[in-house]
Amino acid sequence: MNRRMVFFVLGRIMIVTAVLMVPSLIVALLYKEGWAGVYPFLVTMVGTALTGWALSFRQPDDMTYYMKEGFVIVALTWIVLSLSGAMPFYISGWIPKFYDAFFETSSGFTTTGASILPDIEALPHSLLFWRSFTHMIGGMGILVFVLAVMPHTASKEVYVMRAEMPGPTFGKLRSRVQSTAQILYVIYSVMTLVLVLLLIAGGMPLFDSFIHAFGAAGTGGFSSKALSVGAYNSAYIEIVLGIAMLVFGTNFTLYYLILNRRAKQAAKSEEWRWYIAIVVVAIAAICVNLRDVYDNVGTLLRDVFFTVSSIISTTGYATVDFTYWPPFSRLILLLLMFVGSMAGSTAGGLKVSRVAIYFKTFIREIRRSINPNRALPLRFEGKQLSKPILQQITHYLIVYATVFTMITIVVAFDAHDFESSFSAVAATFNNIGPGLGLVGPAHNFSFFSPFSKVVLSIGMIMGRLEILPMIVLFSPSTWRKV
Amino acid sequence: MNRRMVFFVLGRIMIVTAVLMVPSLIVALLYKEGWAGVYPFLVTMVGTALTGWALSFRQPDDMTYYMKEGFVIVALTWIVLSLSGAMPFYISGWIPKFYDAFFETSSGFTTTGASILPDIEALPHSLLFWRSFTHMIGGMGILVFVLAVMPHTASKEVYVMRAEMPGPTFGKLRSRVQSTAQILYVIYSVMTLVLVLLLIAGGMPLFDSFIHAFGAAGTGGFSSKALSVGAYNSAYIEIVLGIAMLVFGTNFTLYYLILNRRAKQAAKSEEWRWYIAIVVVAIAAICVNLRDVYDNVGTLLRDVFFTVSSIISTTGYATVDFTYWPPFSRLILLLLMFVGSMAGSTAGGLKVSRVAIYFKTFIREIRRSINPNRALPLRFEGKQLSKPILQQITHYLIVYATVFTMITIVVAFDAHDFESSFSAVAATFNNIGPGLGLVGPAHNFSFFSPFSKVVLSIGMIMGRLEILPMIVLFSPSTWRKV
Repeated sequence: MNRRMVFFVLGRIMIVTAVLMVPSLIVALLYKEGWAGVYPFLVTMVGTALTGWALSFRQPDDMTYYMKEGFVIVALTWIVLSLSGAMPFYISGWIPKFYDAFFETSSGFTTTGASILPDIEALPHSLLFWRSFTHMIGGMGILVFVLAVMPHTASKEVYVMRAEMPGPTFGKLRSRVQSTAQILYVIYSVMTLVLVLLLIAGGMPLFDSFIHAFGAAGTGGFSSKALSVGAYNSAYIEIVLGIAMLVFGTNFTLYYLILNRRAKQAAKSEEWRWYIAIVVVAIAAICVNLRDVYDNVGTLLRDVFFTVSSIISTTGYATVDFTYWPPFSRLILLLLMFVGSMAGSTAGGLKVSRVAIYFKTFIREIRRSINPNRALPLRFEGKQLSKPILQQITHYLIVYATVFTMITIVVAFDAHDFESSFSAVAATFNNIGPGLGLVGPAHNFSFFSPFSKVVLSIGMIMGRLEILPMIVLFSPSTWRKV
Repeated sequence: MNRRMVFFVLGRIMIVTAVLMVPSLIVALLYKEGWAGVYPFLVTMVGTALTGWALSFRQPDDMTYYMKEGFVIVALTWIVLSLSGAMPFYISGWIPKFYDAFFETSSGFTTTGASILPDIEALPHSLLFWRSFTHMIGGMGILVFVLAVMPHTASKEVYVMRAEMPGPTFGKLRSRVQSTAQILYVIYSVMTLVLVLLLIAGGMPLFDSFIHAFGAAGTGGFSSKALSVGAYNSAYIEIVLGIAMLVFGTNFTLYYLILNRRAKQAAKSEEWRWYIAIVVVAIAAICVNLRDVYDNVGTLLRDVFFTVSSIISTTGYATVDFTYWPPFSRLILLLLMFVGSMAGSTAGGLKVSRVAIYFKTFIREIRRSINPNRALPLRFEGKQLSKPILQQITHYLIVYATVFTMITIVVAFDAHDFESSFSAVAATFNNIGPGLGLVGPAHNFSFFSPFSKVVLSIGMIMGRLEILPMIVLFSPSTWRKV
């Protein structure tokens, strides 16, 4: 374990974090929030930057690092990021308990969007901006960002990138990680900016447009309104955001291909086809289930499309309180929470590719029972999956289910009813935001005990980093001297 | 597909089924139920035996069969068994709807113990006896029974036995399947008889002792009392049955080893140690959670021990209405429903061995992240698990989860609340019996729609046969002519 290298990278990232608070500081100045709006950021920035400088002022002699260090760097970064990011909320006094501020901020960075704030609209603009900007930072990944903007520091960024990027990797990561990271961040920023413009064009105020564009881009879901996107009551805004959420739930490699005039290849993506198929089937199933609840087919389609897009993209914006939908529709939403969107997007969940491979495994097991002697290779994206990759994907389900069960057991201590507590874990671990019942879109997570809130916060970070980095970080053998 | 062989074996089994109704007929005569008690059995027996004779009067020329035929025989047997077994309930008029009678009987044979009867105590003795006797038949498996008592008919019984015996097989099945089946059935019958005597010694009426011994032996859970075992309000009976349920949830191979004076080897069973450890941890966790609800530690221990034993053994007897326990305790029970008991027992669920291997896989994945280059073999029962076996066990989880999700989606159409509908599927698919909420021990499954009842019945048979035989049966390619 190259500890010096870990702390060096961590220090650099803390400096970047301080810099990333500059836009929020500017918002505080623009909205004339005075010293009360400025000092929470100023104190945090100075503190974070100084700590970061202390950790990284001397470059370590040994700059090499491997998978274990990559995991530890990623996990530590996300915890430190959430701790620093929580400071403005805490210092300003708007979130008086630090565990609440930590929950809110890890919910932001992990692009979950679950909130403990009972009255969002009371918050000053600077804090609302910072709250949503964490989605933007967390969406593509802070480490990917650092790789994109910082000078070449080490040769093994691939370990960091692999640990931070969601979903299984099928192809080889391109060797020039840094340039890939730059391209990804350019695509990401341009698409977000386009979304801001589209929202402004639809009559959404400038500030709100940024907030909701950040929330959709990171598939996070923090809103500046208590009623979430429903507050605008605009079909245009709902359709634009509905499509945008699906767009940001798509693997960014596809946009990279389209930019390189290989749209044909992008359209052939098997994961994308599964993704769209699941969206269409879910919308159809819920529409059939809700046909008697709605008078107007247009409103029905609009509400169902937005909700399905919001849940499968793991964003969590709401225009209706789906907690009052019949059990069948709620179950479909709950299942979508586990599916999540495509690998290589900003979304959470198991990822469509994994779910598709699980389903193919199911089909293959059946075929194998009927024809035990036939070789039945499993293909995905046109290629036969090798045994180690297939094993990794199936074992991920076991790891996922085990950790999920453990969190559910802990949270059950202050659970009120099953649907609320189960969906609370599903909504945080899969980085959705609102769940069902007591954690539905009209409610928040404030009623959980401090202990549960910390567990759910760790759960959000685990879900964002696909579990293993966090476990490696907390494993004693990682820190044992050899 | 050797259809003639399939129907031949099926015919033989129908004749055996008719014979197995003789004890119930005797009960009808003993309790002087008259023609009304006798004719439902007589009609069913004659009908079943005649159909069976028509199917099997001529031995097929080609007696060979393979895995596919084995699966189809097992799956068809269990469906036909449940259909024939439902006839006495239907003909007598005590269960007016045939789908209800089918539900009750498949619940019996699969040793689930979920009931649609609102007033059990009104039933005549003969039907109560038959209802519980199906647990006894289904516990060890009808085909194993046929192998044990019938003359040697074919050489490939191993396929049948493997498909019907619960849990993964680690060692090689001994070549002399028939003698193994005989030994298993002798152990099973003697242990049941001992239990009957123990219950009579505790003051339980003779008839009730048989009923509850059948229910515990098959880990089924049908009772002759509306209040289940709670009706006797006897610490002795609860302790005897509590231990008995755990005993019948133990792998029968261990008793075979003990009979062969290899108790030392039996005590070394890793699966058995996991089983006992899970029971102890679950009891401790629930006791801590319920400490403020009970005044008396003795009563607390008694109730929790019985409930945990009843749920993990997948029996489903009740002495308290655990639906009113706090959420944490209910969650533990729900998790135990998925664990189930040991492979090679009469119980349902995923089986302790699988769950233990999933947990070991989880641990190994963590260790692999920390030390990616170390070879980390997975050992169980002292032996290293081969890749194909490990793959089969992990893929079973995927098959299990997929089918479970499908059943849950179907049942959600007439679900009332999440906890009820989810636990209804968990309680039937894992062959427990009562679930939580509306399907808790004080309630029954009568409120489900006919369609859901049929789906849950099929689910029970799927759960009992570990899914694949039923899927092979319903797969069109099984029946296609080559």
